[in-house]
Amino acid sequence: MSFEDNLEKRTKEVESILISYLPEKRGFQKTVIEAVQYSLLAGGKRLRPMLLLETYHFFGGNGKIVEPFMAAIEMIHTYSLVHDDLPAMDNDEFRRGKRTTHVEFGHAMGILAGDALLNYAFETMAKAVDIAKQGPKEQYSICLEKILVVQRLIAEKAGIYGMVGGQSVDVEATEKQEPLTQEKLNFIYHLKTGALIEASMMAGAVLAGASEKEVQKIEDIASKIGLAFQIQDDILDVTSTTQILGKPVFSDEKNQKTTYVTWKGLEECRRLVAYNSEEANRGLKALSKENSCYDGFLLELINWLIYREK
Amino acid sequence: MSFEDNLEKRTKEVESILISYLPEKRGFQKTVIEAVQYSLLAGGKRLRPMLLLETYHFFGGNGKIVEPFMAAIEMIHTYSLVHDDLPAMDNDEFRRGKRTTHVEFGHAMGILAGDALLNYAFETMAKAVDIAKQGPKEQYSICLEKILVVQRLIAEKAGIYGMVGGQSVDVEATEKQEPLTQEKLNFIYHLKTGALIEASMMAGAVLAGASEKEVQKIEDIASKIGLAFQIQDDILDVTSTTQILGKPVFSDEKNQKTTYVTWKGLEECRRLVAYNSEEANRGLKALSKENSCYDGFLLELINWLIYREK
Repeated sequence: MSFEDNLEKRTKEVESILISYLPEKRGFQKTVIEAVQYSLLAGGKRLRPMLLLETYHFFGGNGKIVEPFMAAIEMIHTYSLVHDDLPAMDNDEFRRGKRTTHVEFGHAMGILAGDALLNYAFETMAKAVDIAKQGPKEQYSICLEKILVVQRLIAEKAGIYGMVGGQSVDVEATEKQEPLTQEKLNFIYHLKTGALIEASMMAGAVLAGASEKEVQKIEDIASKIGLAFQIQDDILDVTSTTQILGKPVFSDEKNQKTTYVTWKGLEECRRLVAYNSEEANRGLKALSKENSCYDGFLLELINWLIYREK
Repeated sequence: MSFEDNLEKRTKEVESILISYLPEKRGFQKTVIEAVQYSLLAGGKRLRPMLLLETYHFFGGNGKIVEPFMAAIEMIHTYSLVHDDLPAMDNDEFRRGKRTTHVEFGHAMGILAGDALLNYAFETMAKAVDIAKQGPKEQYSICLEKILVVQRLIAEKAGIYGMVGGQSVDVEATEKQEPLTQEKLNFIYHLKTGALIEASMMAGAVLAGASEKEVQKIEDIASKIGLAFQIQDDILDVTSTTQILGKPVFSDEKNQKTTYVTWKGLEECRRLVAYNSEEANRGLKALSKENSCYDGFLLELINWLIYREK
């Protein structure tokens, strides 16, 4: 099977897991539930849950305990997009060719759908306990500990010292139209994009029983993937076309945003993408065990992510 | 000590616990952290963490494990106020005589501070594991289970089928200016106000080791307290003065909001407040154990809450 076919198949598998964790419509609050479902089903690469699952497989994991966390991480990513798109933030009316949540459901419902998604991510993670209860009794306590560790790391990476922190620095710099230092730009990239990718891969590793040292290495690898991914985004914004990208190009320039391309130029950016992705690959290969039944998809996925054209 | 002096003393104790769990300023994201601190320290009755603590004491609890949950429940309550006050929602510029978060820090930062608060509530609850680790070894597993149960119940009561759900039905009805049925009004009151009060008291009970049956009874008692509390709010809106209340009176009428007073009239509302508070009191007394070292403050607190004049 070609990588693209395999990716499509696995994306569908991830989406079916996500769908199985959607909140169901009951009570009078059907509009906010519709808005949550609409936001979650608006497409996307499903990168974070896929990285979570593949890292879980990479470390030999093969249970269902991973599924609520996959759904939760996509809910957190989705809520951040829903709130980013609000008029007070980026004021975007379309995302992936569809009307954004607040355009479709109204401004107040956009705020509430984002709140509902973030909260529901934690409700969903809590359901992992039900899966642990169905597993072997002697594993139960260890399983509860893992659940608590993963909930915590996802919360930390999503929060003030993670994604929300990065987003708030970005918003503030954009509002003030202040020129970004390289240090601040790195900080924003690391938290806004990197943190949730780190959380995804670390969660997969922890759930599969990786050691603390291995989880630390995965954090470092994920951080490099996040950076390469974000720099590739900056590159595509000035080299791609609206048709290929599915969103306007030159948007950073239009919004007077400082990016890696502004700082380093295209050529150096391409070099940095290559360097970070090679480092991530090297790191992963060093972690992979002999006789592992892991099928190598994670490495292919990372290459595709980083050298993607859209 | 008079009840008022006792209440003041205990409110200060609750606030000092809350302060010990405030996020500290580090990194470039100092504005969002300031906004979070500002929102959390803007005053208030600290009702939910106090109910949590007192219910914990009521069931004989006397450890520190309760503290991160007290802080977390106040963070969730606070985020809901910060987002409620946004221009797209109630558009309130003042709360408790202070400028609301988005007025003080800007609209985008108001959204992000709310997101940060909700997320930080879950980060804070995760810290309970550190406290469990310091406790007796033979209690550790049971403690982890309790933490997971409480995290889950708080998440559920705060989410789509709890507070956010109630808020979204309220917002939608207000936007459409649709007259509320008694059933829908009950639904909104139960979820928007009741759910977090239920979560607080249930969390205290679970952490103190109450049985499932006792926790169910506490849920029912808390639901009655929540309803009485909300009806008293409706009564005060038409019988108090702006000076006593610290916020404009007749705001429901001005905003064309259907309330219990609209439906039932003042006299019947007063009867309902009395009925629900008596039922809650009766329920609590039935649960209290002989020889308990519980000091009776919870019952006094509930009476004060329900018959308060502001």
